[in-house]
Parts: sequence; structure tokens; C-alpha cells
Amino acid sequence: MDLTASPFPSPEEKRSVRAAKRDAVLRAAVQMFNARGFHQTSLDDVAASLGISKPTIYHYLGNKDQVLLECVKIGLGQLIAAAEDARTRPGTGADRLCAFLVRYAEINMDDFGRCVIRTGDEALMPESRERFRELKRRIDTDMRTLIIEGIADGSLAPCDPKLAAFTIAGALNWPARWHDPAGSESPEELARHMVDMLCRGFQPR
Amino acid sequence: MDLTASPFPSPEEKRSVRAAKRDAVLRAAVQMFNARGFHQTSLDDVAASLGISKPTIYHYLGNKDQVLLECVKIGLGQLIAAAEDARTRPGTGADRLCAFLVRYAEINMDDFGRCVIRTGDEALMPESRERFRELKRRIDTDMRTLIIEGIADGSLAPCDPKLAAFTIAGALNWPARWHDPAGSESPEELARHMVDMLCRGFQPR
Repeated sequence: MDLTASPFPSPEEKRSVRAAKRDAVLRAAVQMFNARGFHQTSLDDVAASLGISKPTIYHYLGNKDQVLLECVKIGLGQLIAAAEDARTRPGTGADRLCAFLVRYAEINMDDFGRCVIRTGDEALMPESRERFRELKRRIDTDMRTLIIEGIADGSLAPCDPKLAAFTIAGALNWPARWHDPAGSESPEELARHMVDMLCRGFQPR
Repeated sequence: MDLTASPFPSPEEKRSVRAAKRDAVLRAAVQMFNARGFHQTSLDDVAASLGISKPTIYHYLGNKDQVLLECVKIGLGQLIAAAEDARTRPGTGADRLCAFLVRYAEINMDDFGRCVIRTGDEALMPESRERFRELKRRIDTDMRTLIIEGIADGSLAPCDPKLAAFTIAGALNWPARWHDPAGSESPEELARHMVDMLCRGFQPR
């Protein structure tokens, strides 16, 4: 400890400590939701894993529904950022779509993305559920837009963009159920491999 | 009512009435699990929807965990039957795989298949969970075997059969989350459309 420093934290230090505590709670919660399931996890367990009390979690985040909503919002925020990043890339529509899809699959193998996929709408309270659906619709729209652009510039085969987006999303959501972080291939390698299969198809070319 | 018939049911009639009652309970339960989520459904609600009491459900099926296990076993049984049916078909490996995949996707849009996909392993008690995983592994093995046969006879492009099976399964599991039975395309049309996209891929040929 630096004894020459003021023992009174600055407003900025306070904000940063508060954010770090909030992040630690969310990380502990999302890992427990993913491992045990949302309904099998209590906030008491999450609090105990951090050596804090349940009211501390209420203070930083609110009740269990609100904690879950924050977790899925982080995962959905990562997916939305990936779509924004892909949209501004050079190359064809197919290049931009593939760049997005690789990140999309990688995120679904990480804590918060995994939670997005493993959470059924019905697990959330009506208001949170509406927010969850709204963010998922935005990612679906982003994916469809990239597909439409790829069809328009001829880099993707003509198809129904809605059904294509559902088909691709399903394939790349599923690692949230089967991917073992201890496996030999990295999430990025697996993601590239899966996206390549989807692009090329299973029929010989 | 046929008054010339014996008022005492034969053993066969008894078995058939018992099976019909059991089926009615399972159908009511699976539809409620799918609509509300397993954790948000009580056996009291299921019983009430049939005008019976919860002990009647215990009598025919057991507790809620056992009811869910029966529901997913029916869905998994349909998938296993589809794989068996596909295996004996004429044509190339790709033809057999596609026949299986169309049925696979259709089943996932139906009540019991939908329940298989919407049920996370963690929702079940340890013993039921092991049985659930075992049946899912069997379907995964069946899908991989069909892929390996297709690669061997040249009707499918060379690929990693394990990752291909996960990718295809994910794409065709996802309708259990998005498919609206009131939509304009039939499950069979949607299934064929999705399987065709996966076979051809999104890159132009």
C-alpha cells in the first residue's frame, strides 16, 4: 500500500472499484448459471463463491432476474459489437459475413455468449424477456443484412435470408451446448472450421 | 355405449385405456413444458389442464423429473427411428444422410422433439440426465456414421465427421426455438429447405 497516497479514494477510483466489484459478481454468476443452470443456481451460492453476502449482490445488480438480464446483455453486446466491426470491413459481402460469423461462434463459446444461448426466453421476467428478445432481434437483423449484401454482390448464393440466418445462427449457437473449453482446438479454430463448412456446404464442389 | 358388451374390460382393453391416459398426460405435459419452460410448469397445472389430480399423474408416470424424462425419451425415440429408417434406404450416403436430416429437423419442430432440444441436461436429476445423454450420444453416433459413409462413397465432401455432425445438428435443432407452428411453410418444407442450404453451402457453386 502506498502510504504517501490519500486514504480517501477519488470519485474516479470509487467508480472503478464499483465497476470491478460488479464485474466480479457477473462473472461468478454467469459461470454458475452455465454450469448448473439458472434455476439450479441461487444468489446465495454466487455470493458465497465470492465471500460476500446476498444483499451485496442486490446492491450492485439487483435480484436474480436482473443479474441474468445483465449477463445476457453483456453477451448480446459482444455480438452486436462483432456485427458492427464486420460491417465496416473491406472485401465482399461474404467476407464481411464470415468475419462476423467467426466472432459470433467464438463469443458463443465464451461465458456471456454461452449464457445468451442457454437462456430460454421463458426464464426471464416479462419486462427483461422483452429486452432480451429485442436485442436478439437486432443481431438477427444484422446477420440478415450481411447475407442480403453478400447475395447482392454475388459473393453468396441466392437464398432466403431469413431462413439462412436462422440456419447459420443455429449451427453457431450450438457450441454453447457442446463446446468443452478443455478441448484441443481453440474456440477461434473451431469457429473458422464451422464457418468454412457452412460456406462450402457438405456436397462435394 | 354398447349395452350388449361386457361391462368388464378385457386385459387388452385395460392396457389400451391405460396407455391412452398415459399418452394424454405426456402430451399435456410436453406442451406446457415447451410453452412455459420446465421450471415454470407444475404438475398441478398439467393435472388441472386434464381435469385430473396430481396423484393421478404420479400413478401413471411418476414425479416431474420422470415425466420430463418420458417426454424427451419419446422425442429421442423418434429421432433414433428416423436414423434407422434412413440407414436402410437405397442411394448414396448423402441421400441417406439428407433423408435422416429432413426427418430430424421435422421432429425438432414437433412437441416431443422440441422438448428434447429445449431441455438442458442440468434440468434433469442425475440418473435421468445420464439416460438423456446416452440417448443423445446414440443419435450423434448415427449422424456421424451416415456422414462417414457419405465421405467414403464420395457423395459428401471430406470433413471432420464429429464437427460436421455438431454443426448440422445445431442448425437443425434451432427450429425448436424459433419455429412458429402457425407459420406459412410446413415443417417438412422448412426442413427440406434448411437441409438443402447445408448441403449446397452459402458460397455460390
